[in-house]
Amino acid sequence: MIVHERAIRFEEVDAAGIVFFARFLGYCHEAMEKLFGGVEGGYVDLITRRKIGFPAVHVTCDFRAPVRYGDVIRIAVTVPKIGTTSCTLRYAITGADGADVATIEHVVVSTDLETMTKLPLPADARAVLEEHRA
Amino acid sequence: MIVHERAIRFEEVDAAGIVFFARFLGYCHEAMEKLFGGVEGGYVDLITRRKIGFPAVHVTCDFRAPVRYGDVIRIAVTVPKIGTTSCTLRYAITGADGADVATIEHVVVSTDLETMTKLPLPADARAVLEEHRA
Amino acid sequence: MIVHERAIRFEEVDAAGIVFFARFLGYCHEAMEKLFGGVEGGYVDLITRRKIGFPAVHVTCDFRAPVRYGDVIRIAVTVPKIGTTSCTLRYAITGADGADVATIEHVVVSTDLETMTKLPLPADARAVLEEHRA
Amino acid sequence: MIVHERAIRFEEVDAAGIVFFARFLGYCHEAMEKLFGGVEGGYVDLITRRKIGFPAVHVTCDFRAPVRYGDVIRIAVTVPKIGTTSCTLRYAITGADGADVATIEHVVVSTDLETMTKLPLPADARAVLEEHRA
Repeated sequence: MIVHERAIRFEEVDAAGIVFFARFLGYCHEAMEKLFGGVEGGYVDLITRRKIGFPAVHVTCDFRAPVRYGDVIRIAVTVPKIGTTSCTLRYAITGADGADVATIEHVVVSTDLETMTKLPLPADARAVLEEHRA
Repeated sequence: MIVHERAIRFEEVDAAGIVFFARFLGYCHEAMEKLFGGVEGGYVDLITRRKIGFPAVHVTCDFRAPVRYGDVIRIAVTVPKIGTTSCTLRYAITGADGADVATIEHVVVSTDLETMTKLPLPADARAVLEEHRA
Repeated sequence: MIVHERAIRFEEVDAAGIVFFARFLGYCHEAMEKLFGGVEGGYVDLITRRKIGFPAVHVTCDFRAPVRYGDVIRIAVTVPKIGTTSCTLRYAITGADGADVATIEHVVVSTDLETMTKLPLPADARAVLEEHRA
Repeated sequence: MIVHERAIRFEEVDAAGIVFFARFLGYCHEAMEKLFGGVEGGYVDLITRRKIGFPAVHVTCDFRAPVRYGDVIRIAVTVPKIGTTSCTLRYAITGADGADVATIEHVVVSTDLETMTKLPLPADARAVLEEHRA
């Protein structure tokens, strides 16, 4: 399990005064990048030098409590499923007080960014995913 | 059915060169606002004067093809389910050529933005939703 | 002069309830893309096929009135200065009622996006800029 | 002087592959919030409880080098000018290697967010600004 803590920023709320729902996917992506920090060179090197990305093919979100500017959220990432070319990431998001905020499941496919075709999960990425399997 | 056409903007892509997945929820929100344009004063009046919002409680996304800067997407919105306080919106997203891009389902709850408690769907909002039920 | 009208979106405000100041540069960029719509294939073709971009080197903003969700702004673009490799765009932003919202000046440099070196303004881009010189 | 270090995020680039210019204002706002961290309760408390904000009235940006996904920028904030109701913040942005990226000047006005009228700088905010005057 990787934990990503994140303060909600001033410009991340919407006209209803709460964090805009789309922002949560950005927070999860940050947490995924942190997880892939376990690969040499991190997600940056995967994307910019190796030209391997992990676009989403399926996402499920359950939102249970709104968050606001100044709140700090905690995203715990685990990996419930690892396939040949894809894997499922699970993000359990809680507030500073431990309150349940949201749960997000995110299926990504290892992809050659030049041809946009799927690739077997690179061995080092797979090793990191296995480490956080749960 | 409401249709929302939308050109992908210059700053909506990510370092992989494709539209960042979180952006799609923003596109769907635009389409939902267009649907609620059928309520007098539109979504703006709901939010800013009536203080009624429709936060998401559940979202499911299936992404089938990447989109890029300059692509134009077409979002067809229908309403598969209408409850007492909540409803489900369905967004079928296609490319300019009709290619399947994504399908998103979005369950929202009619909410008093001052108390953050749920409300029966306002009659005018319900009427608009019924009009696009499918 | 090119005019770009734009409704403020739900997620473009900040925790102070007004449009986040950085958003205005995005609105101006949209207006600039509209201006370059006068070039065959538009800004999209410049960026994606010709690999020519117009990164900002200097920007000056004067903000005179806040705008909020639901407001519609009008951005009038003119081109006060055209050089060999650079030009200055001027955006006069007003509210629906004609109220003065902001004035932004934006100096951009014609740039080869592969080498990130400056280029003489392409003839077709220059022609469009000349058309809106004021 | 306050220093804010910040890694460029995956979704902060544009279709030209470099950080979208508007993003720099967001980075500066983060640095300003960090500076106002010296006020009890921080910027969050100013905005959400005291209803005092610091909207921009004037911004000047000089961009000298593009930054990309994976770059880390360093923003050094100083306060060149403190008036009765307004102040000027200066952000010197450099890359990880010390290379000059951008300089931004940002004039903000202490504002009652309920009436949107200007206020004398609160004593605690002024004290923090004085501490970083340069």
